[in-house]
Amino acid sequence: MKILSTTAEIQAYTKEMKAQGKTIGLVPTMGALHEGHLTLMRRARKENDIVIVSDFVNPTQFGPNEDFDKYPRVFDADCEKMETVPVDAVFHPEPSEMYPDGYCTYVNVEGDITHKLCGAQRPGHFRGVATVVTKLMNLSRADRAYFGQKDAQQVVVVKRFVADLNINVEIVMVPISREESGLARSSRNRYMSDAEKEAALVLSRSLRKGEAAYEGGEKNVEAIKKIVSDEIKKEKLATIDYVDVYSFPELLPIETINEPTLLAIAVKIGKTRLIDNVIIGGDTK
Amino acid sequence: MKILSTTAEIQAYTKEMKAQGKTIGLVPTMGALHEGHLTLMRRARKENDIVIVSDFVNPTQFGPNEDFDKYPRVFDADCEKMETVPVDAVFHPEPSEMYPDGYCTYVNVEGDITHKLCGAQRPGHFRGVATVVTKLMNLSRADRAYFGQKDAQQVVVVKRFVADLNINVEIVMVPISREESGLARSSRNRYMSDAEKEAALVLSRSLRKGEAAYEGGEKNVEAIKKIVSDEIKKEKLATIDYVDVYSFPELLPIETINEPTLLAIAVKIGKTRLIDNVIIGGDTK
Repeated sequence: MKILSTTAEIQAYTKEMKAQGKTIGLVPTMGALHEGHLTLMRRARKENDIVIVSDFVNPTQFGPNEDFDKYPRVFDADCEKMETVPVDAVFHPEPSEMYPDGYCTYVNVEGDITHKLCGAQRPGHFRGVATVVTKLMNLSRADRAYFGQKDAQQVVVVKRFVADLNINVEIVMVPISREESGLARSSRNRYMSDAEKEAALVLSRSLRKGEAAYEGGEKNVEAIKKIVSDEIKKEKLATIDYVDVYSFPELLPIETINEPTLLAIAVKIGKTRLIDNVIIGGDTK
Repeated sequence: MKILSTTAEIQAYTKEMKAQGKTIGLVPTMGALHEGHLTLMRRARKENDIVIVSDFVNPTQFGPNEDFDKYPRVFDADCEKMETVPVDAVFHPEPSEMYPDGYCTYVNVEGDITHKLCGAQRPGHFRGVATVVTKLMNLSRADRAYFGQKDAQQVVVVKRFVADLNINVEIVMVPISREESGLARSSRNRYMSDAEKEAALVLSRSLRKGEAAYEGGEKNVEAIKKIVSDEIKKEKLATIDYVDVYSFPELLPIETINEPTLLAIAVKIGKTRLIDNVIIGGDTK
């Protein structure tokens, strides 16, 4: 597995691979890899000649009071996991390599889709995501890029700017990977104590309740949001950031569920902010 | 010469050309082609297997009170000129093809370089330029893209976002093409009456005076600006928008000329806003 740490190195590598006619799959990550990331990599492995993973905690997508400094950085452990896939190359740059002195260009998705859900609590977050993903797509010369459904809004935003900017990359959304307990896998799960991890099960449990209500015939959005919220409120360690329902992938407000619909939640368990979601009323693609 | 009017058409064409191993040169234009554009195309012809010209009056780079509606559109005449180069394919989309309903992504060069010179008078102009050029580079899968030095600030901005976003395109700046009279060629020259065209010679004349002063030993920026401004003020039909001097290509303010330096002016002749420039004190590359 090649370890590439400069933009010049990854550009030279991917130029050579494309010259050989290879297809390239990109899996952008911030490291602290878990089974969810590996699921993305295995999918990329199946569908491409070359799999490139970026392992980079991207400063531009963190707000000033967020966990950029605290975000786990465990590159050696990440490499061991990537070897099992196996991955062909990992791109692991310093922030100064991605954003050198004088850097000033940002890709901004100005639509409503970046202002709701996580965008409301995290201004500038999706500007940072769109910028770094654009850079990574160019550096990797990817044919396909893989994203987890857990960050469903991120998938919507990425598909939006890829279509808008006519970027020649196919975006693949991979279902959420969960612990046996139901907890959605997240690099931030390691912030939590055992008691908090137990409390965090309320996220997936509340979503299952909402989904069950829908499957039992409840189509009213407010009723489903109340079922989910009421379940979360039963958990003392949990504080709701949002419980929201939007059409998917348009992210438009709806009152009644007649089409693929995103039921998404963000909940703080102690100091750890977790997100989870389920897509109901249609395909998850 | 192929005429491509949809994004799907140009994407299919350029995908096929790249599969054949061809190099592609892109010349982005807003049509109303003149000898300056043809100089760019001939340069691209020499350096690439395939030359693609975009002929598109881009709405996002015009301000609300600018000449978007009035901008000349003479596609048939443009095609005749392109055939003489010859050009392999021209991309000539409708605005709705480039910015369909729901479009919301913009490439924004947030640095100081977009706020001075033409950026001061035209807020949002370079956001529109960066966005459309990014789209055109992706659609054309260009190896090289060609820009005229007449829009020197545009070249600086394009080089900036191409470097920042790690876009795999080489930017080539081509010297200003001038009439025998010295008038820099511009699609907007056709707005002017004969008397105004005569008056417009003050732009190149004033720049030559500034350049001559520099070559005669004057290194002080304010002194050179005064020489240029005084010359322009002699022309009754001329109104100065700006006379400015910056380091090139950084566009930093300077007091003394010791390095490649951009001497740039914008002048209204009647209602027509014209720009011109000269790079002194170093290479023009």
